[in-house]
Amino acid sequence: MARIIQCVPNFSEGQNKEIIEKIVEEIRVVEEVKLLDYSMDKDHNRTVVTFIGEPEKVIEAAFNACKVASELIDMKNHKGEHPRMGATDVIPLIPISDVTMEEAVELSKRLGKRIGEELNISVFLYEKSASSIDRENLADVRRGQYEGMEAKLKEDNWTPDFGPVELNREAGVTAVGARMPLVAFNVNLGTNDVSIAKNIAKSIRSSGGGFKYCKALGIEIKERNIVQVTMNMVDYTKTPLFRVFDVIEREAKRYGVNVIGSEIIGLVPMAAMVDVADYYLRVENFDHSQILEKRMME
Amino acid sequence: MARIIQCVPNFSEGQNKEIIEKIVEEIRVVEEVKLLDYSMDKDHNRTVVTFIGEPEKVIEAAFNACKVASELIDMKNHKGEHPRMGATDVIPLIPISDVTMEEAVELSKRLGKRIGEELNISVFLYEKSASSIDRENLADVRRGQYEGMEAKLKEDNWTPDFGPVELNREAGVTAVGARMPLVAFNVNLGTNDVSIAKNIAKSIRSSGGGFKYCKALGIEIKERNIVQVTMNMVDYTKTPLFRVFDVIEREAKRYGVNVIGSEIIGLVPMAAMVDVADYYLRVENFDHSQILEKRMME
Repeated sequence: MARIIQCVPNFSEGQNKEIIEKIVEEIRVVEEVKLLDYSMDKDHNRTVVTFIGEPEKVIEAAFNACKVASELIDMKNHKGEHPRMGATDVIPLIPISDVTMEEAVELSKRLGKRIGEELNISVFLYEKSASSIDRENLADVRRGQYEGMEAKLKEDNWTPDFGPVELNREAGVTAVGARMPLVAFNVNLGTNDVSIAKNIAKSIRSSGGGFKYCKALGIEIKERNIVQVTMNMVDYTKTPLFRVFDVIEREAKRYGVNVIGSEIIGLVPMAAMVDVADYYLRVENFDHSQILEKRMME
Repeated sequence: MARIIQCVPNFSEGQNKEIIEKIVEEIRVVEEVKLLDYSMDKDHNRTVVTFIGEPEKVIEAAFNACKVASELIDMKNHKGEHPRMGATDVIPLIPISDVTMEEAVELSKRLGKRIGEELNISVFLYEKSASSIDRENLADVRRGQYEGMEAKLKEDNWTPDFGPVELNREAGVTAVGARMPLVAFNVNLGTNDVSIAKNIAKSIRSSGGGFKYCKALGIEIKERNIVQVTMNMVDYTKTPLFRVFDVIEREAKRYGVNVIGSEIIGLVPMAAMVDVADYYLRVENFDHSQILEKRMME
């Protein structure tokens, strides 16, 4: 079985293309790793890089990129609109195929340890890798930003998981953690009454008492004169697309409104789609290893 | 995008494991090709090998295996229950991912030409690669079997597509052709009345006026006290699984019977499953390149 994880590191440089090319090159040169995308944001002064590959190789590429970032980016001079605390600000690791969340957490700890020990950078583990509940949320970890980190690292609650208590002034602090892939999933409704989309969004999202791993908003799509339930599915293995879709359809019917279509924005793990097919066809004992392409990746 | 074809050659040897290992080794050693399965049948005295990979490499592996088969199998001495005409009896090429049927046909012609010219074996193109309508069906091509081939090759209608008109007595004749992948798909019905499964099977299969690319039978599953519509979906791109499933469900309801589940037997192309998800979720403009794993195979 092909083991794949995704990595989406954020670097605190969005203006100097030369620096970014050198960082990205560290990812490009690693075999069994595919660079999917990188986009520089000038105002945020930040670059988001997306790559996938064999887990060990992804860790290697992430470490190498982080090392080069620590050499080429000086946080002492960094300004940008987006909150940040380090040259390599955050490294999320996302299990995609035949990797468990436990394994992804383990990988994130190994990566964090190397960054701490070999690069002398303070590292916080966050999300599923967090060592305490107050480190799960990246916003909490990053609160105070680079400028506040010198003091924060010395607080009792904020001893870093790896690396020095003393701030590395050039490289700052890096968050490393495992999380599930996000699936951006929207459902379009055949009405222009946005209150219906808002009501449905409220009833299906976790914060409204709905599905635990679903974030949802109701919005207007003015150019099509329709409304949409726009969602982030934050764990499709536990809150699957088909279940949310079916509930939206039922709820919409109560208002006499039809679902007219859906959208999947950006990338989606194969398993999220195959699970949908499996559900609607009511396949007994389907095993994802029956997918021919998975055999090719073995 | 990862280009993948599948190849399922049948060799006329099912008893001598040493010979089969030598043939299969020719496939194993080719990079970017994955041997998925091979199974020897003693009574049929025949071995079916399944492998997938990058198209050029699959052709190379198939040619090499065919060459070794022509050296190690002597058709003059072959006996077996299964109809056969050559040491390498038939080589189906099946487009799986990002390969069109036209490309698969082109590949089959190149493979057939090499077998004809370099190995001096008469080759018939069949199925989608057939040069005339009476060569589409393998049973027609193979009629007369090995013993009848010397005369058949000299008939006006049966001049081989490649290779000699004179029979290669050791290697016999080989059929090469492109076809769509088969998906073995069964739908289980909550009744023990097999006539309902038989009626539904008749109404959905091509021969009964149903879907063009669906073969279906109604059978009993005695150990579960249910019945089943058992199908071969011979072109899931034109007769998709979801459409057949929906019609079976509707037809069953007319008898007051529920669909209690389905089964996918063996391997299935990812696209066949993703198309199902796409249909039920009514995804607008879904592109298979949004699947993360496809990016990995690029």
